[in-house]
Amino acid sequence: PAIPDRRSFLARASAIGAVSAAGALLSACRLEEQPASGGQQAPGTTPPVGLKAAAPYAARDASLPARAPGGHATVKFTAEEVNVYATQDLVVPAWTFNGTMPGPFIHVGVGDTVDFTLTNHGKIPHSMDFHAAQINPKEAFKSAMSGESHSFSFKPRRAGAFMYHCGTQPVLMHIGMGMVGAIIVDPPTPLPPAKEFVLVESELYLGKDDKGAPMFDYNKMLGTLPDYVVFNGIADQYLHNPITVKKGDRVRFYVVNAGPTQTCAFHIVGEQFDVVYLGEPPANAIRGVQTFAVPAGGGMIFELDCDVAGEFPFVNHQFGHGQKGAMGLLVVES
Amino acid sequence: PAIPDRRSFLARASAIGAVSAAGALLSACRLEEQPASGGQQAPGTTPPVGLKAAAPYAARDASLPARAPGGHATVKFTAEEVNVYATQDLVVPAWTFNGTMPGPFIHVGVGDTVDFTLTNHGKIPHSMDFHAAQINPKEAFKSAMSGESHSFSFKPRRAGAFMYHCGTQPVLMHIGMGMVGAIIVDPPTPLPPAKEFVLVESELYLGKDDKGAPMFDYNKMLGTLPDYVVFNGIADQYLHNPITVKKGDRVRFYVVNAGPTQTCAFHIVGEQFDVVYLGEPPANAIRGVQTFAVPAGGGMIFELDCDVAGEFPFVNHQFGHGQKGAMGLLVVES
Amino acid sequence: PAIPDRRSFLARASAIGAVSAAGALLSACRLEEQPASGGQQAPGTTPPVGLKAAAPYAARDASLPARAPGGHATVKFTAEEVNVYATQDLVVPAWTFNGTMPGPFIHVGVGDTVDFTLTNHGKIPHSMDFHAAQINPKEAFKSAMSGESHSFSFKPRRAGAFMYHCGTQPVLMHIGMGMVGAIIVDPPTPLPPAKEFVLVESELYLGKDDKGAPMFDYNKMLGTLPDYVVFNGIADQYLHNPITVKKGDRVRFYVVNAGPTQTCAFHIVGEQFDVVYLGEPPANAIRGVQTFAVPAGGGMIFELDCDVAGEFPFVNHQFGHGQKGAMGLLVVES
Repeated sequence: PAIPDRRSFLARASAIGAVSAAGALLSACRLEEQPASGGQQAPGTTPPVGLKAAAPYAARDASLPARAPGGHATVKFTAEEVNVYATQDLVVPAWTFNGTMPGPFIHVGVGDTVDFTLTNHGKIPHSMDFHAAQINPKEAFKSAMSGESHSFSFKPRRAGAFMYHCGTQPVLMHIGMGMVGAIIVDPPTPLPPAKEFVLVESELYLGKDDKGAPMFDYNKMLGTLPDYVVFNGIADQYLHNPITVKKGDRVRFYVVNAGPTQTCAFHIVGEQFDVVYLGEPPANAIRGVQTFAVPAGGGMIFELDCDVAGEFPFVNHQFGHGQKGAMGLLVVES
Repeated sequence: PAIPDRRSFLARASAIGAVSAAGALLSACRLEEQPASGGQQAPGTTPPVGLKAAAPYAARDASLPARAPGGHATVKFTAEEVNVYATQDLVVPAWTFNGTMPGPFIHVGVGDTVDFTLTNHGKIPHSMDFHAAQINPKEAFKSAMSGESHSFSFKPRRAGAFMYHCGTQPVLMHIGMGMVGAIIVDPPTPLPPAKEFVLVESELYLGKDDKGAPMFDYNKMLGTLPDYVVFNGIADQYLHNPITVKKGDRVRFYVVNAGPTQTCAFHIVGEQFDVVYLGEPPANAIRGVQTFAVPAGGGMIFELDCDVAGEFPFVNHQFGHGQKGAMGLLVVES
Repeated sequence: PAIPDRRSFLARASAIGAVSAAGALLSACRLEEQPASGGQQAPGTTPPVGLKAAAPYAARDASLPARAPGGHATVKFTAEEVNVYATQDLVVPAWTFNGTMPGPFIHVGVGDTVDFTLTNHGKIPHSMDFHAAQINPKEAFKSAMSGESHSFSFKPRRAGAFMYHCGTQPVLMHIGMGMVGAIIVDPPTPLPPAKEFVLVESELYLGKDDKGAPMFDYNKMLGTLPDYVVFNGIADQYLHNPITVKKGDRVRFYVVNAGPTQTCAFHIVGEQFDVVYLGEPPANAIRGVQTFAVPAGGGMIFELDCDVAGEFPFVNHQFGHGQKGAMGLLVVES
């Protein structure tokens, strides 16, 4: 189904009387979009409110990257406070790992060694909390001061789709401003071959600074009603740039819900999940599932057989949140 | 326990000092009830704000209907924009399938053929998204324009309690305005005999039109704080018209959470669930459960042995929502 | 990591521009803290707004109490409307069982006899709803009027971590004002030895009375955005008074989510759960879990092997709520 943009939707909804005239709550709950004059903005050009993105607009590749070879991963992250795209038309000043929101996807296996270094290019302390690590957080996850580095190593003991995030207090703010990501850990016997994708869901809570430019708003994070809910950092990006597979493919989604607060009720329109792993794979699975909830701070693995060709929206079926950008398209080519 | 109506409760709560005097937030969060002068309104008479229901007030029969015979179900729905009861005293202008909110319950089996036709008697486009179907949604779930019909067929492959809903954009609005329902799919070997009921939980987000009449409010849907949370369309209807079984009965609830947003933490006061099917039955079950969460857009099957006679409230135990109408009574007769 | 108090955090956040100047939403969403002049208040002294607690400040012992001996537990509760600590600095007028929020932890086994008596020392009716009981709630869970007593007996049939609460209407209010607790039921063959703890998560919704003193606010409960989210009644108490075990211990948390509304996404920073029991133990378990959601009105059992020494924060990883007090520290001593 065609997905209208929100402006044209609101115009239509207003015309049919379904949206109250004042729209007061909407204004209170969502950042107003302020398109540049002249209509629809081309991605990558100067955004409406004047913030310049650190990099041109590009849809995030959702593919699971290749596993680090040789049982060893050297992961060097920088904490970067940079402007990133939150929608095709909106740039926000985020806190990031390596300049992207979410940070890079990491792919290792149980028992591999992960040597991690965080170098803090930001103005305030930042840190790293890997849910894949069983380690003393007081030492490993401590903050690196501005301009400094901190390193630690760990060997994941459990397979799964794990969240990582900055754990510096207040954690809500560091998660909410974009310092999140996913680390995927293969079991000792890898799962059967599949087309594999990573989806990190985040909520974006936005206000404006005193110049009218967008900024993340900690008070709104405490208010728990997001302006946008996004997969891999950008609202609706996979409606514009679908994830594509072939008919007959087994498809595996590693779904990490970075939150900070809302549940991700993951669902694919027109399909069902053959398997959802609630805990460590390959055990801890349920089969035959229409929708399952990934809690904030959690991760689950969803598999399906794409034996029907077509265009299948994947969504957060908590639609009050899903409608705010947590939609994408899985295209199964015949 | 006796369930006071909300007005008498608020009077009492105010008297004991538990509700703040101004009640500002309450006014902001809930539709004020406006009873006709002369006190309690008889169900089915002219409702307070002047909307006339398309049909007299009646509690919705929660019984699972008989399965379509011969492995074949012909399902003809009309999209109808009609006034329906949301409480015993409140009529709202809904978008519906076949004039009821939720739409008719459908009962088929794995491998049956479902021939479905939607005829759109509404003013705007509507469509059908069956979670029980594995099918190309771009074709099958496309919108029928006003005055037109659209048909498709499918064979459910998986058993379970599945949601259906209008999938026309914005999906949040079409779900929130009432175009939801349940399709129950039996496994190849049917589950053991039981008294079987269907509960579709929905949230209702209401405002007022410029004449003061109630209407659904899309901004409130985006705000995710419902005015009412209801089983099978009408707040508290099964407190007034309980679901009745006999001592010794096995009871099976097919619980579909239509949302659009909140979780249904299903619980029965004074009882426990012998089995909850998280995925396709008869596997994917957990046993011995007080409360389990059905995500928005999901469905689960809850079974219990009614070996104690009495009156057992069933609720959404997320009580900030459950208190708004997601309560009913299961009477076990000795 | 060091946990700054909220005042110093907000000052810091404001300085870095992450909190909007007006802070209007924050004011609307959270009770302002009003420290006594002279800075940080010593726990147990006169609290800022003049309410006197019924007992001096003390962290709640989270240890699972010994099981009632001889297969028989006599449980006598009084309903008490008393002032209790909600944070180290804030006293609120709660409704309680036996003067504490949550009420006493109860520990029995499947098939034991629980003889329960509630004596109501409060001003309004109160009652008891044990999720561990399969019993006719119309009789057993009926309200005791002010000054009266009500007794009933039951034999738990199922093992687990069960909520109990006052079930008098409106249930949302009686849960929200503090009448909650946990009853732990051992399976016929007890679970393997472990260091065992009980965590009851509650949301606190607060306003002010006409003298400016804090009070619970029913309208806010209906609004579902809590001011505090707490384990065992007091915000952040286990940051100040950690739960301590030894390296090599098996640790078992009985997590009951009293709600009334929000989900508890339970997670331990730097650790993973070896087992989470979704239903009755010792079956119904999943293994290898970073975070799992306990619904409001539900309870689950989380186990981990503490084979790494350190300081491990346990949190509700729905951080918009967790940041409001649902954090504690598990110290694993080497």
